[in-house]
Amino acid sequence: MSSDQQISMNKIKISLDAMGGDHGVESVIPGAALALKKKPDIEFLLFGNEISIYRELEKFPDLKKKSIIHHTPHAISATDKPSDALRKGKNSSMRLAIDSVANGQASSVVSGGNTGALMAMAKIVLKVLPGIQRPAIASVIPSEKGRSVMLDLGANISCDSENLAQFAILGSVFARAVMKIERPTVGLLNVGSEQMKGNDVLRAADALLRSVSIPGDYQGFIEGDDITRGTVDVIVTDGFTGNIALKTAEGVGHFFKSIISEEFKRSFFSKIGYLINKCVFTRIKNRMDPREYNGGLFLGLKGICVKSHGGADAYAFSRAILVAANMVEQGFNDTVVREIEGFAEAEASLGISADGVV
Amino acid sequence: MSSDQQISMNKIKISLDAMGGDHGVESVIPGAALALKKKPDIEFLLFGNEISIYRELEKFPDLKKKSIIHHTPHAISATDKPSDALRKGKNSSMRLAIDSVANGQASSVVSGGNTGALMAMAKIVLKVLPGIQRPAIASVIPSEKGRSVMLDLGANISCDSENLAQFAILGSVFARAVMKIERPTVGLLNVGSEQMKGNDVLRAADALLRSVSIPGDYQGFIEGDDITRGTVDVIVTDGFTGNIALKTAEGVGHFFKSIISEEFKRSFFSKIGYLINKCVFTRIKNRMDPREYNGGLFLGLKGICVKSHGGADAYAFSRAILVAANMVEQGFNDTVVREIEGFAEAEASLGISADGVV
Repeated sequence: MSSDQQISMNKIKISLDAMGGDHGVESVIPGAALALKKKPDIEFLLFGNEISIYRELEKFPDLKKKSIIHHTPHAISATDKPSDALRKGKNSSMRLAIDSVANGQASSVVSGGNTGALMAMAKIVLKVLPGIQRPAIASVIPSEKGRSVMLDLGANISCDSENLAQFAILGSVFARAVMKIERPTVGLLNVGSEQMKGNDVLRAADALLRSVSIPGDYQGFIEGDDITRGTVDVIVTDGFTGNIALKTAEGVGHFFKSIISEEFKRSFFSKIGYLINKCVFTRIKNRMDPREYNGGLFLGLKGICVKSHGGADAYAFSRAILVAANMVEQGFNDTVVREIEGFAEAEASLGISADGVV
Repeated sequence: MSSDQQISMNKIKISLDAMGGDHGVESVIPGAALALKKKPDIEFLLFGNEISIYRELEKFPDLKKKSIIHHTPHAISATDKPSDALRKGKNSSMRLAIDSVANGQASSVVSGGNTGALMAMAKIVLKVLPGIQRPAIASVIPSEKGRSVMLDLGANISCDSENLAQFAILGSVFARAVMKIERPTVGLLNVGSEQMKGNDVLRAADALLRSVSIPGDYQGFIEGDDITRGTVDVIVTDGFTGNIALKTAEGVGHFFKSIISEEFKRSFFSKIGYLINKCVFTRIKNRMDPREYNGGLFLGLKGICVKSHGGADAYAFSRAILVAANMVEQGFNDTVVREIEGFAEAEASLGISADGVV
C-alpha cells in the first residue's frame, strides 16, 4: 500500500449543514477551517446555498482544497416543526447532509440547525444501530473533576429500564472512545442514592445494571448535585429528567454570570476592581466556556450525527466537528454494536427479558 | 377586650425541635433569639434535653422570658429511617414538637432534623388539610428577578394532574400570603413551552389549570432555565423532577463557587486582587446566600411545619422560624382550605373529575 493510499484511507469525511444555526455559513465555514487546522485529515462535504458557501470559503484556501460544495435549494428554519421538516425538507441542506451519511459519502454529519428536525430526520434516514431500542442525545458537561457525559437529554420523554441500561452502554463507550477514560464510572440519576429510592423503572434499571456487566463501572444511583460534582463519568437518565436538569444548570450558570457582572458594574471602584482581576476572570470564563463542550451527540444511529448549539460561533462549531471526527476515528458505532450484542447475550444467559425482569 | 388580652391573642406560638440539625441547640437557641428580635410577638416551646437547652438559653435573657422548655428523653438522628422514627421516636424532641401543634399548644413547628422522619411524622400526626390529596415540600429560591417558590421538592415521587393543580394552589397562596405578591404567576415545569410537550400527566394538568381559575395567573409550561430566570413566581412540578432540579442547581452553585475560589487563590497577585474586590464578593455572596432562603415548607398539613437545613447556622435557623411565623400570621392554612374548596367546586361545575378528565 502506497503512502498516498494510506493517507486517503485515513481521511474522515464529514458533511456539514452550512445553513444551520443562527450564523449559518459565517460560523460553519470558519469553524470547519479551525477544525481542519487541528485535524488535517478531515474532508468536508458542504451542503447549502453555493453562493454563500463559496463567498465564505474564499477566505480559507486550505479548507477550500478539502471541501466539496453541494448546492441545496432549501434550508430548515428554527421554527419548522419536525413533522413539516420531514415532509417538506427533502431538498434542504440538513436533509441532504444526513442523506450523504446514509449513502456512505460521508461518515458523519454536523448541523447547528433545528434540533427536533435534525433528530427526526437522522432517526428516519440513518436508522438505529442493530440492537439499539432508542437513540439518545448525549452531551459532555464540565464538572469539578473535569468533565462527564450525560444522556438522554431529551430524545425520549419516558424510558423503560432496558432503554436506560442501553444509554449506560452508549455513554460508557463514548467516555472510553472519545474522552479516553479507560474504565468510566456510571451512575443513574435519582432522588437519593439508596437502592429503594425512585420509581419502578429506576429500580429495575439499577438491578439490571448490577447483574449484567457494561463497558463501565456501574456505581448505582446518583443525585442532582453529583452531576457537576463529577461523581461519575457517565450520567444516565431519561430524556425528560435530563432535559430539565441540563436546562436548570444552564439557568443557574446564567444567573451567576449576571449577578457577577451586575455587581462589578455597580460603581467606579468595582469597575476598576474588575480590570485589576481581569486575567482571573478570563481564566474562570475559560474553565466554564460552554463552547468547549458544544455538541449534542445523537447516539445509537447508523452514522455519527452531532448537533451544534444554534448560537455557536466558529470556535464552538469547530469543537462539534472535532467530536464527530473523534467518534468516527475511534470506531464508536462498531464498538457500540459489539457491546450491545454482548449485553443482550449476557441478559439472555441470565434469563433476563428485554424489560429487565428476571 | 383589654390591651393585654389583645397582645396575648396576637402571640404566635412556635415549637422548636432543639435537638435537630448538625448544631442542635447551638443554632436553634441563638436562631430563636434572632427571630425574636425581628418579631417580638413570638413565644417558643423548646423540645429537647433540658440541660443543654437551659445552658444555651442563659445567654439570651429576652428569649428565656418567652420560652417554655419541654424536656424530651430522645432525639431522632440524621440516619434514622422514617419508619423507625415513627415507631420508636414517640418521645423524641421532633415528635413531641409536632404533637404540640396537633394538640393546639403551638401553631407551627420548626426542625432542622432528619427530613424523611419529619415529613413522615408531620403527615401522620398533623394529617392533611381538608380537600388536599398530597402534601408537598416547597422552598423559596433566588432568581434573576428576585425570588420564586417551587414545589414539590421531593414529597411525592409521582403525581397526577390533580396533585399538580393543587400544588399550584398551595404555591400561589404562599406567594400571596408570605412573599406578598398580589397576583403570582404560575408555571408548570416541562421540557418545552408548547402545549403538546411533555407527558400525559403534564398535558392534563395544563388543561386543568387553563380551565379552572386558581389564586394566581397560570402561564403554562416553563423550562429548566426559567427557574432561576424568574419567569414565574410559582414553579410547579412533581417531587422527582423538583428534587433533581433543585439539587442540580445546588451542585452548579457549588461548582461556580469552587472555581472562583480556586482561581483567586492561584497566585499571590490573584489573592491581592480578591482582597481589593472583597466588598464586591461579599455583595455577590449575600445575594446568593442560601441562608436567606432556608426552610423546606411542608404545605398542605393541618399545622405549619418548616424544615430548616440540617447545616443551618443561627441566622439561617432564624429565617426558617420567621417563615413559619409569617405563615401563621397570614392565616396560610385557612386560605388554602378556602381556595382548594373553590377549585373543587369550579371543577365540579365544569364536569371535571378528580383526575382532571372532562
